Amino acid sequence: MYIILVYDFGERRVGKILKLCRQYLNRVQNSVFEGEITPSKLLELTTRAEKFMDEEADSIIIFKSSHVKWLDKTVIGKQVNDLNTII
Amino acid sequence: MYIILVYDFGERRVGKILKLCRQYLNRVQNSVFEGEITPSKLLELTTRAEKFMDEEADSIIIFKSSHVKWLDKTVIGKQVNDLNTII
Repeated sequence: MYIILVYDFGERRVGKILKLCRQYLNRVQNSVFEGEITPSKLLELTTRAEKFMDEEADSIIIFKSSHVKWLDKTVIGKQVNDLNTII
Repeated sequence: MYIILVYDFGERRVGKILKLCRQYLNRVQNSVFEGEITPSKLLELTTRAEKFMDEEADSIIIFKSSHVKWLDKTVIGKQVNDLNTII
């Protein structure tokens, strides 16, 4: 399936979530990722995130679509080219 | 149509884009909005944003879906309850 993942994390944990998301998805904006992912890999990602996130302060939203063709993306302004998945 | 709008704006302009987006969409995370919008209203929103955004530094990404039912949303952690559309 295709997902869009957006996060809002406290300063102390933001580097950790960024590093984690990069292992599974493509970064399209500062705290926005997208890509094809299997349900099991997505569960792995969220389970790993839940280990360090502060559920009172941090947030992850995942929008799932069964196919990317149902979504059309428009970018205005600066483009993020973050192809480095190994950090 | 249903859209997800995410922005990443410089500190000086972030209040302005927040205020603008609130007039058209529902806030679901710090810089993430979603909702039903007509193509003409979306054009109005982006035209207004382009007037003050710095295209070298700021970014808006719009994901469009022809129908909300194609998207499934999961929230982990803190929920944003931002029902105040007048600021």
